[in-house]
Amino acid sequence: MKRSLGPRAAAYPTPVFIVGTYGGHGDPNVMAVAWGGICCSEPPCVAISVRKATLTYGNLVERKAFTVSIPSVDHLDVADFFGIASGRDVDKLAAVGLTPKRSDLTDAPYVEEFPVILECKVVHVAELGLHTQFVGQILDVKVDEACLDVDGKPSVNLIRPFSWAPVENHYYAMGERLGRGFTVGKVFVSENA
Amino acid sequence: MKRSLGPRAAAYPTPVFIVGTYGGHGDPNVMAVAWGGICCSEPPCVAISVRKATLTYGNLVERKAFTVSIPSVDHLDVADFFGIASGRDVDKLAAVGLTPKRSDLTDAPYVEEFPVILECKVVHVAELGLHTQFVGQILDVKVDEACLDVDGKPSVNLIRPFSWAPVENHYYAMGERLGRGFTVGKVFVSENA
Repeated sequence: MKRSLGPRAAAYPTPVFIVGTYGGHGDPNVMAVAWGGICCSEPPCVAISVRKATLTYGNLVERKAFTVSIPSVDHLDVADFFGIASGRDVDKLAAVGLTPKRSDLTDAPYVEEFPVILECKVVHVAELGLHTQFVGQILDVKVDEACLDVDGKPSVNLIRPFSWAPVENHYYAMGERLGRGFTVGKVFVSENA
Repeated sequence: MKRSLGPRAAAYPTPVFIVGTYGGHGDPNVMAVAWGGICCSEPPCVAISVRKATLTYGNLVERKAFTVSIPSVDHLDVADFFGIASGRDVDKLAAVGLTPKRSDLTDAPYVEEFPVILECKVVHVAELGLHTQFVGQILDVKVDEACLDVDGKPSVNLIRPFSWAPVENHYYAMGERLGRGFTVGKVFVSENA
């Protein structure tokens, strides 16, 4: 039996992206964003949504550039702080002792200590309501070498990203590896061939 | 030390959404989508990206309506199958013995056996390249009563959704609960107040 919760912004799992931008004076800012995700394979693109009231919104409109730094569970408290504080009141990276690194590819900084970095230029903007969605073309993905498996591929077990659960408002770690994509479902292909 | 992987569609965690649509003759179709996520709080909206080559793309253009059914780990193999097979070749829901349920709110079917359902109407379309992004306004969220906690909120521990890891191409379960949002980062607010 299902219960209707009404119109809600809820889906699972939801990522925690740390969006890096520069302000008018070249001051680096970071903001935690839960509304986002990959939205195109070729060219590779990622979408992030921010409210107009944020410092990040103005930076995005001005510079048309951003990074996404994906934190590991080691920086859960830091990432949460990046969603609580405003860059108007505090230099968030300085406050937590992390390093803004200037991207060579786009006009934005990223969090050097985080394991996965996406460097992006804005290619599409959509006014959706409270949030504005910015689609960024991904110019490069940088991953800590310690988070690459023997085949050189990023491994979730090594990255240890986490998820934020809407409505419930809790963070969750990632769990066990379950099976290969485009593989575990083949049992139904053979049954119906 | 970071390694550059080049422009890639990779972010973590990435969801597995089962997108439900009707075809020209009212035949229900479902498709697994990993490129998507919530993109606005008010009105609540979710984005999904699909390739033009898919049956779902035509259905979305025609009906301007879709559902997102979020599977639990119990249906991992089924969800993977929904990403392998095409609705042009097989009635995917019939093949796996699951039930297409007609939404009362939008012109699309959802998977009755899955724990979380989003019923959506298309409000924005963006041509991004290989993928087209459809933004759907969420008209209702329906959740299995067994997946609601004592406060009536959907709980990830009870829903048991899973994630698909790009590049690595593995599915992952969700893990332990780590802490409350907008709370665990307050340690840094007090330090800098």
